[in-house]
Amino acid sequence: MSVADLTEAIAIVEHTGTKQPNDLKCASPADLRGLCRSGVHRSPTVGLCAGRVQANLVVLPQKYAYDFLLFCTRNRQSCPLLHVCDAGDPLVGPLAPGADLRTDLPGYMVYRHGKAVEQRTEILDLWKQDSVAFLIGCSFTCDGAFEKRRLPLRAAESGKNVPMYKTNIPVTPAGIFSSGTVVASMKPVPSTRIAEAVRLTSRYPHAHGAPLAVASGASIGIADIYSPDFGDAPEPLVGDDIPVFHACGVTPQCVLMACGENIPLAMTHAPGCMLVMDVLAEDSEEYIQ
Amino acid sequence: MSVADLTEAIAIVEHTGTKQPNDLKCASPADLRGLCRSGVHRSPTVGLCAGRVQANLVVLPQKYAYDFLLFCTRNRQSCPLLHVCDAGDPLVGPLAPGADLRTDLPGYMVYRHGKAVEQRTEILDLWKQDSVAFLIGCSFTCDGAFEKRRLPLRAAESGKNVPMYKTNIPVTPAGIFSSGTVVASMKPVPSTRIAEAVRLTSRYPHAHGAPLAVASGASIGIADIYSPDFGDAPEPLVGDDIPVFHACGVTPQCVLMACGENIPLAMTHAPGCMLVMDVLAEDSEEYIQ
Repeated sequence: MSVADLTEAIAIVEHTGTKQPNDLKCASPADLRGLCRSGVHRSPTVGLCAGRVQANLVVLPQKYAYDFLLFCTRNRQSCPLLHVCDAGDPLVGPLAPGADLRTDLPGYMVYRHGKAVEQRTEILDLWKQDSVAFLIGCSFTCDGAFEKRRLPLRAAESGKNVPMYKTNIPVTPAGIFSSGTVVASMKPVPSTRIAEAVRLTSRYPHAHGAPLAVASGASIGIADIYSPDFGDAPEPLVGDDIPVFHACGVTPQCVLMACGENIPLAMTHAPGCMLVMDVLAEDSEEYIQ
Repeated sequence: MSVADLTEAIAIVEHTGTKQPNDLKCASPADLRGLCRSGVHRSPTVGLCAGRVQANLVVLPQKYAYDFLLFCTRNRQSCPLLHVCDAGDPLVGPLAPGADLRTDLPGYMVYRHGKAVEQRTEILDLWKQDSVAFLIGCSFTCDGAFEKRRLPLRAAESGKNVPMYKTNIPVTPAGIFSSGTVVASMKPVPSTRIAEAVRLTSRYPHAHGAPLAVASGASIGIADIYSPDFGDAPEPLVGDDIPVFHACGVTPQCVLMACGENIPLAMTHAPGCMLVMDVLAEDSEEYIQ
């Protein structure tokens, strides 16, 4: 598929606002990243390039890199590390050859002094010699395995972003990253297939692994699944769909906000707008850090 | 078992120089650490406190902590992180309640400017406010599972340390830790049980996981299994025992040496002389970082 075809496919998505076209679902990661780079694709990557590893992004000045790396190692379920770039290096290496972290995600958030001040499609001018990029696993990495087994991906089916919620589960502090709670994403799974989904996601610890809670989010502080803190509200549950909650890579964004004045500048992906990498989800255990 | 009993048991080991007594094999981690703290137990921990998680130790000044943490995330098979202490903190928390990293290992190595200058039984006077301790997984963590399945632990059976070898597998560099090769340990496994041992160790990624090589070390640079670089030479292979090579937590010691003048002081465990923690190997996935 040429970039022109994909551009047209995207235009259809943006126009109809509904389903992701099959074209984009099966696009190559390099093609999708090209569309992000040119500013054409600006929407979430849920269900796209099925079967590839997707990654959350956090970019911090080197000064805070040790505390954040320690934070990731202490909060592995919400922040499973896939890759840490050398300071100033926006390239990812063999996980996504040619990918440029400053331009190749559909959307970025800019945080200043703990506040989300801007959403944009590239961060070229904000990237410095001391910028350190962290790539963190994402539950979208499991989408291909879900599809292969015909487990539903309701958000992708309805052309929406996944819903994400602040939980009451405290993070384990590390240096300046001293407070905050885990963010969880939710996907509906039919009741008779929950055991299968638990076993399946358990095999992807680098994509948040097994769920935090099944069927009810009440005990982890999620009162109403139809009022997410990030992403889109889900469609009403259908059939015997049951909500399943997984740790989410938006967690560090809440922790960044909790740092307030202490961190003058940080950049992340926009919720649901991941870096799609070349490495296949099924091969990823041997590549990830 | 009282500490006096254990002390006597150890005395027997030291006297005969052969088998580890069953007493110590089944000692509680806290008892064993007590014997280390009092200087009574000074020998390798292979086969001891079966079923508990054992850990390699690296202690560095805070200045080098980021590069080393990055090194561990980039070299996960040889350096699977179990825990990173806050600067100045010699306590491990719930993994080993009451354990003091300055005294509770059977032996320590002191490195100055890249040279191993001293082996000792405690590092109290070398511990500073900016000392950062890293605990790294160890293949001894699998010993309990080996025993349960009656897979042999030949080194423990003969009262020896495991043999360890420098391989030709280059480490992935991170900052100042820019060169060196992976160190591998070797355990003999009967040919008909290698598949079982591979499957078993694969389930312990935090204890170096699956082997680097089976049957021959030639292609990873190990010419002669009877001439190890660290630990003890193995007894001649018996029956249909086949050598199996796993990544080893001595790897960072070689990388430290390769840093030469750049790192004035570092402390590690002495090869084979691990921190034995309370957490059970079978429960450890949920505890480790």
